[in-house]
Amino acid sequence: MANLLSLNDLTVSEIDEILDRAEQIREMGDAGWFAPNHLLVANLFFEPSTRTRFSFETAEKRLGLQVLNFSSAASSTQKGETLYDTVRTMQAIGAKAVVIRHKKDEYYRELLEGIDVKILNAGDGAGNHPTQALLDLLTIHQEFFAFRGLTVAIIGDLRYSRVARSDAEVLNRLGCQVLLSGPEEWKNEKLPGKYVPVDDAIEAADAVIMLRIQHERHETAMKLTKEEYHDRYGLTRERAERMKPESIIMHPGPVNRGVELDGDLVESAHSRYFKQISNGVVARMAALEWALDLKDGRQASEPERIAEKL
Amino acid sequence: MANLLSLNDLTVSEIDEILDRAEQIREMGDAGWFAPNHLLVANLFFEPSTRTRFSFETAEKRLGLQVLNFSSAASSTQKGETLYDTVRTMQAIGAKAVVIRHKKDEYYRELLEGIDVKILNAGDGAGNHPTQALLDLLTIHQEFFAFRGLTVAIIGDLRYSRVARSDAEVLNRLGCQVLLSGPEEWKNEKLPGKYVPVDDAIEAADAVIMLRIQHERHETAMKLTKEEYHDRYGLTRERAERMKPESIIMHPGPVNRGVELDGDLVESAHSRYFKQISNGVVARMAALEWALDLKDGRQASEPERIAEKL
Amino acid sequence: MANLLSLNDLTVSEIDEILDRAEQIREMGDAGWFAPNHLLVANLFFEPSTRTRFSFETAEKRLGLQVLNFSSAASSTQKGETLYDTVRTMQAIGAKAVVIRHKKDEYYRELLEGIDVKILNAGDGAGNHPTQALLDLLTIHQEFFAFRGLTVAIIGDLRYSRVARSDAEVLNRLGCQVLLSGPEEWKNEKLPGKYVPVDDAIEAADAVIMLRIQHERHETAMKLTKEEYHDRYGLTRERAERMKPESIIMHPGPVNRGVELDGDLVESAHSRYFKQISNGVVARMAALEWALDLKDGRQASEPERIAEKL
Repeated sequence: MANLLSLNDLTVSEIDEILDRAEQIREMGDAGWFAPNHLLVANLFFEPSTRTRFSFETAEKRLGLQVLNFSSAASSTQKGETLYDTVRTMQAIGAKAVVIRHKKDEYYRELLEGIDVKILNAGDGAGNHPTQALLDLLTIHQEFFAFRGLTVAIIGDLRYSRVARSDAEVLNRLGCQVLLSGPEEWKNEKLPGKYVPVDDAIEAADAVIMLRIQHERHETAMKLTKEEYHDRYGLTRERAERMKPESIIMHPGPVNRGVELDGDLVESAHSRYFKQISNGVVARMAALEWALDLKDGRQASEPERIAEKL
Repeated sequence: MANLLSLNDLTVSEIDEILDRAEQIREMGDAGWFAPNHLLVANLFFEPSTRTRFSFETAEKRLGLQVLNFSSAASSTQKGETLYDTVRTMQAIGAKAVVIRHKKDEYYRELLEGIDVKILNAGDGAGNHPTQALLDLLTIHQEFFAFRGLTVAIIGDLRYSRVARSDAEVLNRLGCQVLLSGPEEWKNEKLPGKYVPVDDAIEAADAVIMLRIQHERHETAMKLTKEEYHDRYGLTRERAERMKPESIIMHPGPVNRGVELDGDLVESAHSRYFKQISNGVVARMAALEWALDLKDGRQASEPERIAEKL
Repeated sequence: MANLLSLNDLTVSEIDEILDRAEQIREMGDAGWFAPNHLLVANLFFEPSTRTRFSFETAEKRLGLQVLNFSSAASSTQKGETLYDTVRTMQAIGAKAVVIRHKKDEYYRELLEGIDVKILNAGDGAGNHPTQALLDLLTIHQEFFAFRGLTVAIIGDLRYSRVARSDAEVLNRLGCQVLLSGPEEWKNEKLPGKYVPVDDAIEAADAVIMLRIQHERHETAMKLTKEEYHDRYGLTRERAERMKPESIIMHPGPVNRGVELDGDLVESAHSRYFKQISNGVVARMAALEWALDLKDGRQASEPERIAEKL
């Protein structure tokens, strides 16, 4: 029972456990819905989100959790409340876990003391996005059954993307070769990985992760038009033809068609774009079970918890 | 099992079937709540709405469906995602149906291929609003037990109102005489029906449907004050007195009291305004059952489906 | 079965009954969740709120009610609908109760006739906030087991605070001595209580209720900086040290740390800030049960209702 702030806090065996469970739930199909329980979870999204919020909410409902949804525009944070007080309030109301997206890097630092609810990080600024990394790992594992020795290219906004950071760190730790590429001004020396030209990255990779251009974060930072970006750094149809036969295309979404990816590639045979989204639900179910110590939608009993550790 | 985009896509016998089922559910009263199931439905309202969204949400909850609610202001559509990608994402998350309101006429055209969830149109621009038409039909049928031979007046913004269009087309098809009236600049030659002066329409009609002035759609289009509009085209108390004794007043809501209708008429003996809203819930339950092939809140088995067709 | 608009409408024995039931539910802990029923409740928050809305929503879910949430920004009230028509619409949709927060004082006056759903006031302008008063009473009662003879200080924005008004009136009625203090321009001659200097109030009180500065309501009204306000009218650490040993600190939230209260006092031994929030859920459960005539999350039968009255 722990927070999920960054995959860096998890051991490889904990990551494996979560991925195995996610795959197990996926295989259960419609049986992977559990009876309602009395555990309250609050989704606190201080930044707009469709896919991540709906993905978490669906995961929570399938686990039988009771869900509170927070839309930052309609809330007391306008009244100047600290994040600590908001989360501590959710605890007082009875929440057992909170899922938080916030534009501030490591917003969770102020929540590490005094809070007794589990925190699942749904994205902190340019920091981490651990459940996105989990679903990306799940998607890659479904394809290649292992991580060690794979080559994964991460291309685009390496500087501000929390997806890039979360993916690069965990893929590197799991033994993948990480190739990085994108505009010079978005280079990020802190990421583990090797910078190579876009064409080289795409040709060498088993999995190509194209990052979203976050127009809402740095509107003026990039001087290229969308067409220019696509030509220089995007996955064009020409580049896609030079990918390895078994390689896959990934993207954290929402995709800007014709910018990061040629629109026709979104649902191409190589693409796992919508599969990633489906994987997001089961990955988040497994992550919530892990954080809340759940077993098939109810809290694990003490003997079950001990058995689990053996 | 089909989309519900416009009533034009439905046969008369399909419409009858939905209306019969709606009436049946209405008569069940409190027993018309079904056990929770594992079918996920997303309400995607890209335009503001209270009554339609709450009506659909209540219908979904009474059917035992699992509901996701989307508020366009807090979503990724701000991030430039296409509607296709948003809906395809809901499918990947596990939704079996999406209820969509969108300001764009026939937004659903881009969803007809590649999407494998049922789409229920909750209003497209100045296009269609099929569940509003269903609840209007149900309201008229409860009163007159038939459609053929009835005279229905539709008065007001005939040009931009999707209610006018949906109602006029289906009422005409079902054998009603449709009378149309309203400001000259809002005439719509495409609507089936006969233009007559307001007073004539009101005096001849069995049902008078007063359309809402959509201030948010064409603020400057109309040069009349509210009082002038009411005097010339509204249902004043004087006009109401000249209605036939058994005739009824309808309005899709929300009503601008004193503009389309004299405020005192909203809950008068002739008015079915709030009854329409109640009918909306059962009409939408029946529509969702039809679209999702449900039977008392669960998916129909193969034998049940075959029996249904006999 | 009645509305909950102001505690002034309730007898002392009704208030006692609600408080007893709230305490009983609190002691039930996790057993204080009841089976889902088919009663629909709509939360209509026309002003931003986190804690009150989540508190009511949690209370409703624990009672097994079906919940509709209304975000005023995304609704038809933008389309000019009256509050009466909105609430009457919720009734037509099937709601049995509506929880309303609205910036207009006594907004509920227009709802007293023609509406057949229970109205629970979640705050009307500078009027009343009865469920906040209930949770404050519950918090005080848990500490002192009685009200008569207690001294309660209410400090701050006495003019615009509905919490001040609701608390002062009911505490005075229940036999507490109410001390009032705060800036001269926020004095409110209508409140029952005795004006005294801040230091005197804090030293004499068994319970000190510090009111929130409502920056969003009167931005320019106050000429003091936050620091100046804190020094003159806030609960500083120095003042807190002069409180009676058994006395408690309360605040309706959200707190402006360093303004009404020194930040360190929010979770001090004297503070009941987060306990108030927890009490809010059970107080609202009891209030909903009272308003809707519920018994353990289902509607009381006629014999039960009669037995109750004996």
